[in-house]
Amino acid sequence: MSKDKKMVEAITSREEDFAQWYTDVVKKAELIDYSSVKGCMIIKPAGYALWENIQKEVDRRFKETGVENVYMPLFIPESLLEKEKDHVEGFAPEVAWVTKGGLNDLEEKLCVRPTSETLFCDFYKNDIQSHRDLPKVYNQWCSVVRWEKETRPFLRSREFLWQEGHTAHATEEDAQERTIQMLNLYADFCEEILAIPVIKGQKTEKEKFAGAKATYTIEALMHDGKALQSGTSHNFGDGFARAFGIQYTDKNNTLQYVHQTSWGLSTRIIGAIIMVHGDDSGLVLPPKIAPVQVDIIPIQQQKEGVLDKARELAASLKGSFTVKIDESEKSPGWKFAEQEMRGIPVRIEIGPKDIENGQCVIVRRDTRDKYTVAFENVKDELTRILDLMQKEMFERAKKHRDEHVSDARNYDEFKDLLEKKPGFIRAMWCGEKDCELKIKEETTATSRCIPFEQEKLSDVCVCCGKPASKMVYWGKAY
Amino acid sequence: MSKDKKMVEAITSREEDFAQWYTDVVKKAELIDYSSVKGCMIIKPAGYALWENIQKEVDRRFKETGVENVYMPLFIPESLLEKEKDHVEGFAPEVAWVTKGGLNDLEEKLCVRPTSETLFCDFYKNDIQSHRDLPKVYNQWCSVVRWEKETRPFLRSREFLWQEGHTAHATEEDAQERTIQMLNLYADFCEEILAIPVIKGQKTEKEKFAGAKATYTIEALMHDGKALQSGTSHNFGDGFARAFGIQYTDKNNTLQYVHQTSWGLSTRIIGAIIMVHGDDSGLVLPPKIAPVQVDIIPIQQQKEGVLDKARELAASLKGSFTVKIDESEKSPGWKFAEQEMRGIPVRIEIGPKDIENGQCVIVRRDTRDKYTVAFENVKDELTRILDLMQKEMFERAKKHRDEHVSDARNYDEFKDLLEKKPGFIRAMWCGEKDCELKIKEETTATSRCIPFEQEKLSDVCVCCGKPASKMVYWGKAY
Repeated sequence: MSKDKKMVEAITSREEDFAQWYTDVVKKAELIDYSSVKGCMIIKPAGYALWENIQKEVDRRFKETGVENVYMPLFIPESLLEKEKDHVEGFAPEVAWVTKGGLNDLEEKLCVRPTSETLFCDFYKNDIQSHRDLPKVYNQWCSVVRWEKETRPFLRSREFLWQEGHTAHATEEDAQERTIQMLNLYADFCEEILAIPVIKGQKTEKEKFAGAKATYTIEALMHDGKALQSGTSHNFGDGFARAFGIQYTDKNNTLQYVHQTSWGLSTRIIGAIIMVHGDDSGLVLPPKIAPVQVDIIPIQQQKEGVLDKARELAASLKGSFTVKIDESEKSPGWKFAEQEMRGIPVRIEIGPKDIENGQCVIVRRDTRDKYTVAFENVKDELTRILDLMQKEMFERAKKHRDEHVSDARNYDEFKDLLEKKPGFIRAMWCGEKDCELKIKEETTATSRCIPFEQEKLSDVCVCCGKPASKMVYWGKAY
Repeated sequence: MSKDKKMVEAITSREEDFAQWYTDVVKKAELIDYSSVKGCMIIKPAGYALWENIQKEVDRRFKETGVENVYMPLFIPESLLEKEKDHVEGFAPEVAWVTKGGLNDLEEKLCVRPTSETLFCDFYKNDIQSHRDLPKVYNQWCSVVRWEKETRPFLRSREFLWQEGHTAHATEEDAQERTIQMLNLYADFCEEILAIPVIKGQKTEKEKFAGAKATYTIEALMHDGKALQSGTSHNFGDGFARAFGIQYTDKNNTLQYVHQTSWGLSTRIIGAIIMVHGDDSGLVLPPKIAPVQVDIIPIQQQKEGVLDKARELAASLKGSFTVKIDESEKSPGWKFAEQEMRGIPVRIEIGPKDIENGQCVIVRRDTRDKYTVAFENVKDELTRILDLMQKEMFERAKKHRDEHVSDARNYDEFKDLLEKKPGFIRAMWCGEKDCELKIKEETTATSRCIPFEQEKLSDVCVCCGKPASKMVYWGKAY
């Protein structure tokens, strides 16, 4: 049967089965399709257009801070992957290995990059010689491969798209500054463009990146109360530099090791957009990231003048908004359902009566609020409505997030909250890995981050009762 | 030693050793670096910025014709690659195979995509059902892998970046129209933006793409007289559709096979830019594709007011041109040499005397023409000079190309020309593969294309003397 049919079949409701709702939305909004390669997804036009918009905005922000884009090879020789001990231990169990090239077995097997620290280090080792060569602030947009067992579209797949920034600096301070600068860039992007509020903080030793000195993260809360790590920024100190021998001569002609960082944001963030904003009718896209912002839907389009007026309206809005006009032969109700499933921020309904009255109806996707607007005011009203929608989507997501943050003063409270009120739990922690392991084993919750904004909830660790100094966000996570 | 040093060391001249000149330029203009993975290159900021500009312009042109971007998996299961007989024969000998994922051997080995026809077909098989689903005009920007034995930066590497368009149409005519539309798009892009004249034509049966019904190509001539295939567009007919079972119901509810096309342009084109326009001082970039168009070089920058004026000038040009100001502590001569090596279209020299006279000096990279220009006229003059440079670069390349096209009426003449006057040879051909094979074996020249613009040079094949109807461009090629 035709696509239209598939589109408007009801989807599972969020309350009934959130995981199934998610799967329904990614398929029915035509963001992805499954491929014949297990665990790898096909990103369809609607999904890829979203990624292109994310790239465009993030890349623009990168370049304003002096980032330069490069491209490193897809493959990493085994011996290179093994140079930094913690790093190889973290990644070796989940990489794909190329063992044959053409008709011959390779002398050394190559892994398909799961991340490119080792390639950048191998490059920087020769490319950096003097303090005048620093800093290096390089980034690449590419795909990476991690051989996951369980996969879910956008959230966890064997191949995914991302950007990975890799920098080298003369001093520890410069590296730390860049690490935090990029974390803030990710946070601002998520909040200002994706309307997703995030919590900024540091990962615990247990949760940090393989090979990092410190990992920083932005954590977002999904509608179902689960957390999603939405971007990370790592300070490597001089660990990789020592393993790879990346040295420069400083102004006194002394050899020094560089200090490095890396930071990444992936197609995972599309999962966050879906799970923070979506509703039972499908996707809801924030206006600032939506590939199509306005869907013009003619009513009784067979009547004289309707399509003409709709096209005239579309033409008058081009340049100010991304506009689509749905001239297909489906019924208006069908088209409304499609527009809602795809999450297009507003639709404009325009029929013979509207035209007679010199007006049309603008309907917001998120609230369904309807606005009857005279033709001459449509551009101004759209600007106002889309701005308002962007702002209110953020506020609504923040309110939901804040309502799902609870404080636990002891372990019983912690477990009770986790069961009864899904969301973030703030609780004090002694700093010991054993407590993290115990909590994870007994509740499946993990430490999400040690937030920059600390608060002293009590004097003791929520798990072991020993003295605690750090407040941690905990939660079940994707 | 410092980078500056490396930059201005003399490079091999083009006449002395063109291959070495090419290698020198790609390295010294900092376009690429070699990686520790044999046959894979690192694309450095200057090289990647060039690719980003190519992508931006080509993608804009694509979208104007209705192309939608998607992303397909990196891997192709062996059984999928094998579905179309000619296709697998063409590619299987040169693919890289993944045989292990994580700690386990894979049940079925996966090849790293050398091209994605099979993935798109596997997808279209399910995605296309009705004539209302057609056409599909999808494209992806990605990297592909071909296990080449001999490699050269940009021209032939084991991994390279490209775009691959894959379309499906209801009729043979629609497919043919799209095939030619994209060939023309490539040709226009090369001529208008890269200032590279191309010859449009069809590949012979022997040279066509594995699995195609017909392959069309744009062929450019490099400075040394060798040809470079610069973009290809394939009409698949319904061959892949039959192999994969891609059918739709037409308006009469009858099942039909779709007709398909594919078309690609790769980082190879950067090799063409270098080899068409470069000179013994390095790269020469056409203004319309140059990541930096204007390099402002202060003279005696330590003198009061010089840097201030240079910065003021730079600020006044932003928005109209991409401008860089070189405030480093190198000598002006050093900076000139760097600007020339990098191929920045114009430099502006500005020193104390110029400032006194209210003027500066603009120097064109290609001709070294100098223009003394009053400050208030710089913006207008730059516009004029860059337009002129773009135009003249194309004309110069076309003149060089035309001067290196010769006609051969018989085989002796063919061999003689090939030896004495490198370039394209136009000659008649009988249509038999044996003649192509003989010519290739005896002269290393190949048929580049059967040009759309035909001319009857004689009645007989240049090789076998039998009746001929087609004029062919022949040449040695990269």
